[in-house]
Amino acid sequence: MLWAGNRHPERPLIFMSRTLQAIYHVRCDASSIEDRACAIAVEQSVEMPVEAIEDDGVLANIVGRVAGIEQKAGGSFEVRIALAVETVGQDPGQLINMLFGNSSIHDDVVLHDAEIPAELAAYFGGPRHGLHGLRQKAGVDARALTCSALKPQGLPAEQLAALAEKFAQGGVDYVKDDHGLADQAYSPFAARVAAIAPALRAVERATGRAAHYVPSLSGDLDSMRRQVAMARQAGIDSVMVAPMIAGLANFHRLVRENAGLAFFAHPALAGAAKIAPPLLIGKLFRLLGADAVVFPNHGGRFGYSADTCRRIARAALEDCAGMRASVPTPAGGMSLARVPEMLDFYGTDTMLLIGGALLAERERLVEATAAFVTAVERHGHG
Amino acid sequence: MLWAGNRHPERPLIFMSRTLQAIYHVRCDASSIEDRACAIAVEQSVEMPVEAIEDDGVLANIVGRVAGIEQKAGGSFEVRIALAVETVGQDPGQLINMLFGNSSIHDDVVLHDAEIPAELAAYFGGPRHGLHGLRQKAGVDARALTCSALKPQGLPAEQLAALAEKFAQGGVDYVKDDHGLADQAYSPFAARVAAIAPALRAVERATGRAAHYVPSLSGDLDSMRRQVAMARQAGIDSVMVAPMIAGLANFHRLVRENAGLAFFAHPALAGAAKIAPPLLIGKLFRLLGADAVVFPNHGGRFGYSADTCRRIARAALEDCAGMRASVPTPAGGMSLARVPEMLDFYGTDTMLLIGGALLAERERLVEATAAFVTAVERHGHG
Repeated sequence: MLWAGNRHPERPLIFMSRTLQAIYHVRCDASSIEDRACAIAVEQSVEMPVEAIEDDGVLANIVGRVAGIEQKAGGSFEVRIALAVETVGQDPGQLINMLFGNSSIHDDVVLHDAEIPAELAAYFGGPRHGLHGLRQKAGVDARALTCSALKPQGLPAEQLAALAEKFAQGGVDYVKDDHGLADQAYSPFAARVAAIAPALRAVERATGRAAHYVPSLSGDLDSMRRQVAMARQAGIDSVMVAPMIAGLANFHRLVRENAGLAFFAHPALAGAAKIAPPLLIGKLFRLLGADAVVFPNHGGRFGYSADTCRRIARAALEDCAGMRASVPTPAGGMSLARVPEMLDFYGTDTMLLIGGALLAERERLVEATAAFVTAVERHGHG
Repeated sequence: MLWAGNRHPERPLIFMSRTLQAIYHVRCDASSIEDRACAIAVEQSVEMPVEAIEDDGVLANIVGRVAGIEQKAGGSFEVRIALAVETVGQDPGQLINMLFGNSSIHDDVVLHDAEIPAELAAYFGGPRHGLHGLRQKAGVDARALTCSALKPQGLPAEQLAALAEKFAQGGVDYVKDDHGLADQAYSPFAARVAAIAPALRAVERATGRAAHYVPSLSGDLDSMRRQVAMARQAGIDSVMVAPMIAGLANFHRLVRENAGLAFFAHPALAGAAKIAPPLLIGKLFRLLGADAVVFPNHGGRFGYSADTCRRIARAALEDCAGMRASVPTPAGGMSLARVPEMLDFYGTDTMLLIGGALLAERERLVEATAAFVTAVERHGHG
């Protein structure tokens, strides 16, 4: 069933020339879906009774339009709503507000996808480094990238630095903070940077190979800026942000004003089921400048299906408005044993992130990390 | 069934002295709930295998503890996790990260409630004006407050100002922007402030009664600060923020640096079903300084039950750590006819917000607004 039209024949059928399309999955009876789709179009645009709008320009250009309704397997419907691109301005916060602000509160609606008009994609611009840039920083040609994580929170900066040193000795490309490491008294951001950056440089001098520290930014925009300044001063070239906690507009502001920094996006607070992960993590985080997108791999501690993970990776990598690719970074309870299977699944345009399983090796951490790195390097050459 | 204990007998049973308690509702088999609860405690704290942690201090103080498991009607479980307050620092972003960062991605878990330790409550401080302050600004003694909304987006600032003028002539206390009004080209923030503030002052000179304009802030923290500066310059004393879009830390930063401003919190992007609305809207938005909390009333366009709405209002108003009360502001498809019933339900410690139903009266907008105001004033007097 495909339906496209206009419920208000008295309204002119002039579609806005440039639209943002929001695609929702809606649980609904077939008999009510047309009304429900119109209600979503209104909720996500003018948020008032259409018959109370006197202005022809608003009726013609601003009121959301139902651009299609399609029945899906399982009794839900895919509803396309066309929204005027003018409603977004150039604000990433307003982008998510237009796509899902009030409708997020309706429990029959999931934001499934969005079609971003070329002018918005060009403005936000996507990753500043992306897959190619992160490989270049790591001095890697075509293989998958490797990453591990510093934890647990609660350790002082010096102990985290000792772990970072071992990861680097094992040859990992990137060492990121656990997303629980914020600016707590037991290992303040400044102390982490001061301890970890020189520890990694010492390993680089000894081995000739650099591991890149990716500290996690936290707090409000001022606080994240102070942290960026400290990181840059210490020669760090990559940072991590959780865009849903920081606010999308603040994440994007940092990307815009730090073209030299690579950004890892963490999915904390990204929720489940309400915004489809391929859209939020693969498409929107990339759009706003994430060079790598961390997400829970299937078969780990989280419930994403293999299909969801494949669609996240595809959204991060596929050709889109000339943007650089963002590196799909599956994680969340991964182990050395899964490396070959993950590389078969994701290919080499990926970054594998193994944290806890390496840390569990304790005094064998360097060797376990080296085995992880070797498994990634040798895959496909064996 | 009540369960409290420690799955790892080798770990010392010294509970952290000061804890933040997160309370989850978890869909789970009875046979797996203990494991699931422990997994959540680990996910929300150290996020790594506990047996890989060597540091006694981390084991004793930082690893989350299952403080209780209780079976609920319908086969789900209420799980209490005690988290060390040190993990939060003083960052509202890290507070929500510790409460729900990674667990938001698990679709069997809802964040149901949280017990905020007194020191965090004292630091964040809650509303700077609250119920009493918003009544005082409006020159109102004990009755419920009234509010309406400027929309649709797409109108130029002058037309929005003409609507604001009519709301003010009708005697409403607060006139807020629709949350869709951001900084779009068709009515930039600066133009709205420049048109609406003097329009309301002119009505005040004519009638002796002030309506307060509550413009909606948008964008990153820099942009919201510029908007606050414009608003203050124009003599505006209240603003609206959508904390889940702005980022909780940025919302709270604005509250801290603008003690003279009252803050309305809008629920956009607050989602459905994953964080219980009484916690997010009633408790956390209030904790971080919301003077009024807007939420969808039962029986309107959104699916919140009467019980959910009652619990939001209670969380916003109840005695809590010496904080001021935040004004429960039910909205979302309300009408004049519902005023008596809403006041019976919420009492007078509330603000009624009616937007679209008044705007639908078009040329009778002043009279309809006056009827709304009169209905609120007269309620309980006869």
